[in-house]
This record gives sequence, C-alpha cells and structure tokens, in this order.
Amino acid sequence: MRMSALSARTGVPVPTLKYYLREGLLPPGRATSPNQAQYDDSHVDRVTLIKALTEVGGLDLATVGRVLHVIERPEVERLGVLGSAQRALLGAEFVDLDESESRAIPTSRARDWAYRRGWQIDLHDPVLDDLDRAWAACESAGIGVDEERLDAYADAVERIGEIDVASVPPEPRAAVRQVILGTVLVDPVLTALRRLAQQHIAVSRDHRP
Amino acid sequence: MRMSALSARTGVPVPTLKYYLREGLLPPGRATSPNQAQYDDSHVDRVTLIKALTEVGGLDLATVGRVLHVIERPEVERLGVLGSAQRALLGAEFVDLDESESRAIPTSRARDWAYRRGWQIDLHDPVLDDLDRAWAACESAGIGVDEERLDAYADAVERIGEIDVASVPPEPRAAVRQVILGTVLVDPVLTALRRLAQQHIAVSRDHRP
Repeated sequence: MRMSALSARTGVPVPTLKYYLREGLLPPGRATSPNQAQYDDSHVDRVTLIKALTEVGGLDLATVGRVLHVIERPEVERLGVLGSAQRALLGAEFVDLDESESRAIPTSRARDWAYRRGWQIDLHDPVLDDLDRAWAACESAGIGVDEERLDAYADAVERIGEIDVASVPPEPRAAVRQVILGTVLVDPVLTALRRLAQQHIAVSRDHRP
Repeated sequence: MRMSALSARTGVPVPTLKYYLREGLLPPGRATSPNQAQYDDSHVDRVTLIKALTEVGGLDLATVGRVLHVIERPEVERLGVLGSAQRALLGAEFVDLDESESRAIPTSRARDWAYRRGWQIDLHDPVLDDLDRAWAACESAGIGVDEERLDAYADAVERIGEIDVASVPPEPRAAVRQVILGTVLVDPVLTALRRLAQQHIAVSRDHRP
C-alpha cells in the first residue's frame, strides 16, 4: 500500500508517518520509484504499536525508540529480560549485572524497605529511585504512606505481578515483547481499575447495613 | 519571604513561580510595595504540591488547576467526592448524577464487564472509556487480556482500593484532598511496586526447586 493508505488504515497523519521514518521508528517501505514506496501489514502493526505506546502508554518517542530496539534484539537472554525491559522504559542504560554488583548500593528508604520485605531484586535498580521519589512526594503532600501501608499495597501488587509473570512466554523475543508491552499497556488498565474499585468500595461501604 | 527565597526553598525557578501566579495556581503574596510581595509557608506548601503533581504525578498544568480548584471547594459533598475528584483529574465536567441517570448508558466492553462483575459504579463514568481504550490497546498490540485475566487484576486492585478508601478521612475537604492526591501520587508508587514485584516473582520462579 502507499503511504496515504497506511495513514488511512492507522489513523496517523502522513507527516507523522514521515517523521517516524526519519527517526527510524518505522522501517522504510519497499521502494517502487525514487519518490514512492510500498508498505505492508508489518508497517500497519508497527504504526499501531507506536500509537498505543504513545497515546495509551504515555511514552515519549525517545522511549518508544528504546522499547522497539529492545523488542527487536534477537540475542536477548531469557534471564534478565525483565530488568532489561524495564530499564529500557526508564531510559537507563543496560546494566551489566556483574559490573553492577561491584558498585556500592545507594542507601535509600525504598531499598531498606525492599530488603526487609525480602524481595529478590537488584538493589541497584533505578526503579527503586522512582519508588523513593514517588514515596517522598506522597509524604510531602501530606498523604501518609507508612511502611505498613506500603506493605499492604505490595501484598496486592504481588498478586498483579503473579498474573503478569505467568503470561510471559518462554521464547525470549516473545517474552521481551510481552514484558515491555504488558508493562506499558497494562499500567493504564490497572489505573482505570483502581479508580473504579475505589468507587465501588466507597459506595459498598456507605451502604453497608 | 521574598520570591527569591520561595524559589530557594522549593527549588522552582522564579520565572516558573511568576507563571504560576499569572495562571492563578499560586495565590498572590502580601504586597509590601508596588513591586514586592511577601510569601509564607502556605506558598511553600502550594508550590511543593504543584511540583509533586506535575513531576511525580505527571499532570499538566491545566489538570493541576482543576485539581487545586476541587481541593479548595469548601461546599463539596461527602457523597460523590470520589467521582468528582476523579472527573477533575480526567478533565471531564462535573456530572450531575440525577441528570446523568436520564442519559442512555453507552455500550462498551468495559461496561459489560463491570456490570457482570457487580461493581456498584456509575456506568456513565468516563473512567470506563479510559478502561475501554486501554484494554483495546492491549489487544491490538497482541497482549491478550481476556475477561478472566481482567477479573484477576480486578481482584488484586480491589485490595488496593480497600486500602485507599480506608485512608479517606470523614471531613469532606480533607477527604477530597486525600482522594485526589492519593490517586495521583500513589499511582507512581504502585507502578514502581509492580515492576519490582515482577522481578521478585520472576527470580523466585526461576529458582524454585
């Protein structure tokens, strides 16, 4: 199909498609003349994916680029898939675990908490810095999240993690794809569910005899 | 304190503070001369809150404005606090429930699912449109989220909602503040916890005898 048809199929304007091409987010089509190229269903899939990652997942295009790069790495190892995928989302460099183990672990409230909880995670992980920032923001806004409440949240979130991990296929490339897209695209599902669950619970509680 | 001191205390540059003043996000200080004003701790709190909502909560300034407006409405009713607060975040208008009940309920997959689940929620709620969009994006990216998996997520998220609702104080203004800030600022905490729980569970599973 021509670029105009790709635009019609995906709902993404032609200038945006041209931008994706220039940025390397969308592979070039098959050239049919110096000024024309043909696109196929793989381009439709790719554009739909970029659209979902930006519009639903809220990623910027630089992060989308990293995510697409990781999804396409054929050599990625099964072990470390989760960490690598998550770090691509965060914009952090891929961390060599052997190397990272020789670095000192930063001290932080989130790390102390995760260690006490017994979570088997890499304490260098920058997601822990995210948790520190988010936790501190709650406190500074007067939303008291003490360690007991964080543990209660973590109990519930572990159940979510069980569902997530059970859905990851064994084949590495499919696993990376599932982890990254499942992380980015399921977040908004969970966010909407949380708002609805709050309403349901508030109403049930108010009407409790 | 002068504006330069407010900037130093909060880490927000003076031009940004001036912008907040112009946009009405920050109340004016007490004028001490035609070109000078004094700010106090309430201004520090407000700037810290705007910073948390934008930097951690990821809200744009228009949404921050609506959130601050709702937090300050002294007349808000206890009942409907959750819905009003959530709609302010979504950018939807405040919906009069009597009026909304006379409108037809749109049909959608999320509404069918929520109805079958027995959730006591307003089926006009635009959060359900968010859920529809997020759910469709998962499917179109090949992340299979069937109704069974959505139910499993909802089971876990109900536990999160129980924690959320239990923390809401009875006094209406405090309740609105808690609901809005708890919704916006705890989302990033839960997002970070989900990534860490995934890692912990993946590692535990791989090392299971």
